[in-house]
This record gives sequence, C-alpha cells and structure tokens, in this order.
Amino acid sequence: MSIKVIAFDADDTLWVNEPYFRRTEEAFYEIMSDYLQQHSLERELLKIELDNLPLYGYGVKGFILSMIETAMRVSDKTISIDVIERIIELGKLLLDEPIEILDGVEEVLTSLKGKYQLVVATKGDLLDQERKLRKSGLGHYFHHIEIMSEKDDANYLKLIKHLDIQPEELLMIGNSLKSDVLPVLRIGGHAIHIPYHITWAHEVIDHTIESDKFKSFVAITEVLADL
Amino acid sequence: MSIKVIAFDADDTLWVNEPYFRRTEEAFYEIMSDYLQQHSLERELLKIELDNLPLYGYGVKGFILSMIETAMRVSDKTISIDVIERIIELGKLLLDEPIEILDGVEEVLTSLKGKYQLVVATKGDLLDQERKLRKSGLGHYFHHIEIMSEKDDANYLKLIKHLDIQPEELLMIGNSLKSDVLPVLRIGGHAIHIPYHITWAHEVIDHTIESDKFKSFVAITEVLADL
Repeated sequence: MSIKVIAFDADDTLWVNEPYFRRTEEAFYEIMSDYLQQHSLERELLKIELDNLPLYGYGVKGFILSMIETAMRVSDKTISIDVIERIIELGKLLLDEPIEILDGVEEVLTSLKGKYQLVVATKGDLLDQERKLRKSGLGHYFHHIEIMSEKDDANYLKLIKHLDIQPEELLMIGNSLKSDVLPVLRIGGHAIHIPYHITWAHEVIDHTIESDKFKSFVAITEVLADL
Repeated sequence: MSIKVIAFDADDTLWVNEPYFRRTEEAFYEIMSDYLQQHSLERELLKIELDNLPLYGYGVKGFILSMIETAMRVSDKTISIDVIERIIELGKLLLDEPIEILDGVEEVLTSLKGKYQLVVATKGDLLDQERKLRKSGLGHYFHHIEIMSEKDDANYLKLIKHLDIQPEELLMIGNSLKSDVLPVLRIGGHAIHIPYHITWAHEVIDHTIESDKFKSFVAITEVLADL
C-alpha cells in the first residue's frame, strides 16, 4: 500500500455516538407510549427520518425535527405542547453529551501521526462534529475535519481531489460498511472496517465484501500491524 | 495584490437568501399575531436564535427549531399543534426555495475563472448550501465549497492553512462586514464588501472600516476593474 492520507470516520469509530441516539430514542418512545407501541414508533420514526433525509441531511437537528413530526403524526395531532418541549430538550441534551473516546483510538493516532496525513471524514452537522472533536481532545492529531453531506462515491472523489491525492493513496477507517467502506472501494481507495456493537438501521447492508483493498478488524489497534 | 484564491460568500452575495428568511419570518409573525405584536415577536425570535446559536449553529434547521421554541414561549405553551406543524412546513419550503442568482455574479465568475482559484466560503448547513450551489448552476466555477461553523479569525486561519496559501493571497468577497470582511482583515487577508439591501440583525456592525486591504463596491462587477 502507498497510503498518504488516512481518513477516520468520527461517530462510533473515534468516539461513542449511536448509544446516545438510542438513549434519546428510548426516552422518546417512553414519552409516546400512550399512543403507539415501541415497535411501531421505531418504524414510523425511521420512515420519517429517511423521508426527511434529502431535505435535512444527517445530524441531531434533523433528528429532533423528525421526532417532532413523528409525535404529531402518530398522535394524529392530539399530542400536548409539553411533549414537543420535551423533544426539543432531549435534542439539546444530545447536542451536549460528553465525549467518550473508544478503546485504542489514541494509541492508533499517536502511532500514525507524522507518518500519514490524518483527517476526520464524517457526516452530520459541522458545528456538532467540531464540538465533539474539541471535547475529545483529539483535534491535534488531525490536519482537518471533512464534513460530507453524504458519504457516496461523488463526495469521496471530491475528497480525493481536495486532498490532491490518487484514490489508492487514501485509506478510510470506519464502522459503517455502507458509508465508510463500499464507496471508498468503488472509487479505488482502501478501507478498513472496525465494527461497532450497534449500527443505525439506515447504515446496515446485507451482503459481504470481497476486495484486496478491504480488511475488517475487531479492534482499531490491529490497523497498526497492517500499515 | 498577489491574490491566489478568491473566496465568495454564498447567501446574498451569489444568490438571494435573506428575503426568503424574511418572508418565512413574516408568515410566522402572521400565525402568531394573536399572541404578541410583530415587534415583540421579532425581538423574542432573535433572542432565542442567538441563545441557540452555540448549540445549533447557522442554517435553516436551527431556525425552524428556534421558531418552534418561540411559539411555545410567547404563547406560554397554549399554542396549538397545528401551529407547530405549520412552522415545520414553512421550514421545509425554505429548504426548497428556488435559486435567484444576483446581478453580475456570472459575469464576474466567468471572468475570474482560470486566473484565480475560486471557492465558496459560507456558513449554514452543508447539505443546504450544496443544494443551492447545484440549483444555481454555478458549481463548475468553483474548486470547492467551504462550510465554516462560524466565520471568525480561527476558521479563516484554518481556511488559509487548508488552501496552503499566505493570508495576503486570499481575497474574500461578501455582503457581511461582520463575517466576510472584519475577520479576514484581522488575519491579514484582503476583503471586498458588496452590500445587500437587507441584512440579518445578527450580522450588522456599527462602525466603519479603514484598511488598505479593504474595499466596498455597490456592484459585484466592480471587482473586475480592481483585480
């Protein structure tokens, strides 16, 4: 491999994220339990989130707005204003969660810094991701943070162009096969998958990946032996 | 001047933006007119927007959430769910407004392309700004789009580093003295102000600027004679 730039996904690769979303969702299901069973609520919320994705994109603010819309829809607009207020509060709490760095991350970054250009490549709201990077104390390891509206082929090609490298000089490390691995392999880059124990339904794929530019490790520290 | 990169603000520099926000605000004041006079509503909404800025950042999604919060607060939570629904609809319309390119912009971009590296440097939601750039048909003029969580000195320094240029090799063109001019001058760059006929209260400054790296033109096409 002739890797020049290593891009790290942020949420659930560098730090804990999805469990905070799940906790928020559970609080939401609890508030809404008079109206619908959790199973149906989950389905309705995911449907509204995906419907809104082209307009809102990823991140907490769109998630809050989708929870409000779900509450209105499943209650047939009989929900009280207190519930709307509570949802907005839940969203603000989610935007202010502490940062819990995942095992092995600092060891990996310390070892790779100086040898490669390290960047963060993530979806979501720029301000929120900057806040998390600042809170994490990991900022000094990275050249910069790239926010992508969608982690698709076109945006990875833009990233390559932006970094002024060839596709095969990029290695992407992340927890999502759909966002961090498949599009990177399609454009000719390298990808390493470090699975996280929970994954948002929208990020799940149902097939296996075979490529000589792809590896999957249980622990992020296994990356070091591979480079 | 030894300018290498020209960065253009997007909203109200390349295309119409603030009038759409104003129209949305006016629809909001109309909906809320039973509760408070427009003047007081304006003040309350701005206050809540500014309070939320550190958490939400700029852009339409945060604006929608702040309108919902304002509606709840000024009605003492007596507002109906229909109003919340209407606010969310207003927000979605705002995210789907047509793009109206401002006078002279295409002439300027056509003339400068190839001579300088052109970038878009803007606040707001990445997805929304990408959508506007795509709809505008101006995308091919620009090397890329830079989204900044705040247009302050630190983020302009990051931009300079990112572009791999010296501060004096940057020229920023925009309609906001506060966001597009002052921080750029402070870090040693050049700035040209093209005022737009309306400005969000948060962007207004109350002093004049004197610098040999600063100019203000009525029409963006005047830039051409200056470079």
